[in-house]
Amino acid sequence: MARVVEADGAVDVIDIDDPGDSRLDDFRDLNSVDRRPDLPSGKGLVIAEGVLVVQRMLASRFTPRALLGTDRRLTELTPDLAGREVPYYRVSAEVMAEVVGFHLNRGVLAAAVRVPEPTVAELVSGARTIAVLEGVNDHENLGSIFRNGAGLGVDAVVFGSGCADPLYRRAVRVSMGHALLVPFARSTRWPGDLAMLRERGFALLAMTPDPRAEALSTAMAAVRDQPLAVLVGAEGPGLSEHAMRASDIRVRIPMSRGTDSLNVATAAALAFYERSRLPE
Amino acid sequence: MARVVEADGAVDVIDIDDPGDSRLDDFRDLNSVDRRPDLPSGKGLVIAEGVLVVQRMLASRFTPRALLGTDRRLTELTPDLAGREVPYYRVSAEVMAEVVGFHLNRGVLAAAVRVPEPTVAELVSGARTIAVLEGVNDHENLGSIFRNGAGLGVDAVVFGSGCADPLYRRAVRVSMGHALLVPFARSTRWPGDLAMLRERGFALLAMTPDPRAEALSTAMAAVRDQPLAVLVGAEGPGLSEHAMRASDIRVRIPMSRGTDSLNVATAAALAFYERSRLPE
Repeated sequence: MARVVEADGAVDVIDIDDPGDSRLDDFRDLNSVDRRPDLPSGKGLVIAEGVLVVQRMLASRFTPRALLGTDRRLTELTPDLAGREVPYYRVSAEVMAEVVGFHLNRGVLAAAVRVPEPTVAELVSGARTIAVLEGVNDHENLGSIFRNGAGLGVDAVVFGSGCADPLYRRAVRVSMGHALLVPFARSTRWPGDLAMLRERGFALLAMTPDPRAEALSTAMAAVRDQPLAVLVGAEGPGLSEHAMRASDIRVRIPMSRGTDSLNVATAAALAFYERSRLPE
Repeated sequence: MARVVEADGAVDVIDIDDPGDSRLDDFRDLNSVDRRPDLPSGKGLVIAEGVLVVQRMLASRFTPRALLGTDRRLTELTPDLAGREVPYYRVSAEVMAEVVGFHLNRGVLAAAVRVPEPTVAELVSGARTIAVLEGVNDHENLGSIFRNGAGLGVDAVVFGSGCADPLYRRAVRVSMGHALLVPFARSTRWPGDLAMLRERGFALLAMTPDPRAEALSTAMAAVRDQPLAVLVGAEGPGLSEHAMRASDIRVRIPMSRGTDSLNVATAAALAFYERSRLPE
């Protein structure tokens, strides 16, 4: 074991040459495991990829229990890791590729166990703007919504029915690590929790391509002084009729050139932007 | 040869069982060809995938010279194809997968040759809002910019240096076919063409994460009565110093939670949205 000593502590560096070493099992065959962490075969680990996302994991409620990476990435991460009780398994790029099952040019991974999630009621306490997703089952869209939400003032994310796992590797990567930082909760009473949000003072704004809906800027101006929940559904089907009926305002983004809707993460970004552009 | 006759004409349907049939060469090994159509080995064909994108190709300046698809997609496309002089090669899903080299669940492809592109000066004549891209070398981002631009009132797209091919299959697919519909031109004098745009009355607005830049809503309000060019650079490096210096206003999207920039297509969408949300 090597120890890279920094002013504020040491990093536990463990050199490994054997791709079969069982200490690397958290990182094995990443393409084939954990798409469904809810199944008994799922490990449910949260995996961060790349220096930036690993740094965000270190700043999040998910504490890494191991890192796997090259020497170069160790150098970049040493200031972040110094003094922390987590092993850095230092390997060659070749060993890394063999363990994870593909060439990973980001050069470093961190693995953390999941932590208990808050209830929706706990989550939204004190929030001013939240996103509520229904049927968003694409990891890339989910990740983009977290990234856009983090940048554009969203305090928390609620998952209604039919959403993909925000902690799946691809979602975390596309979110640039914000899926680890922006708090979220899964609704266990859907769409019943929408009524609870309204009781707590949230205006429920449902995004739809319906041309009869209100224009985004008008709708946002009307709710500017209220806590707000922006509801978005999957591209294609959109929000369910249940969710639509439970909402207060149906809102559309004014579109040119025919009837196309935008990608769900882009539509959400426009809503978040319109919300945050209003003077406080 | 079969002919599916509609009220307004017939479709030339040709059944093919042999994946090696040379008439299918336009669609062969799509994963490995034409990433670089500018190279001598590149065929430079424009490929549309799926019913919606094929319909958009049929409405565009790119005239398909052949279609390859299943019987089911033929049924869906017959009204669009009736009376047109283009063969529909009808194959099984298995033959289709063998020809293109992967399973393609969209079930239909169309191939068209490229057409001459306008100059930048021709392109922008009469345009009110254009997007100008520099270094956007990712096909997915490029496609998203076309999709967002089409929906949010962009009249034309100018490519500065270092951009990927907007007619590459993946860009066309992600654009939902709008890369075939929104007119574009490649700058042959970069960044010199920016001065030409200014001479023609365009305000040049450069997107940047720089916190000293002007906020998007303020900047857009100042140029609302002028033709506008929105300049965006690649994620990461952003616009070159040349392009920055040639622009009139540096503009940022006000962001929360640290210094992250948004994805380039999302940032562009917010700029297009802010432009189109202003009263005319």
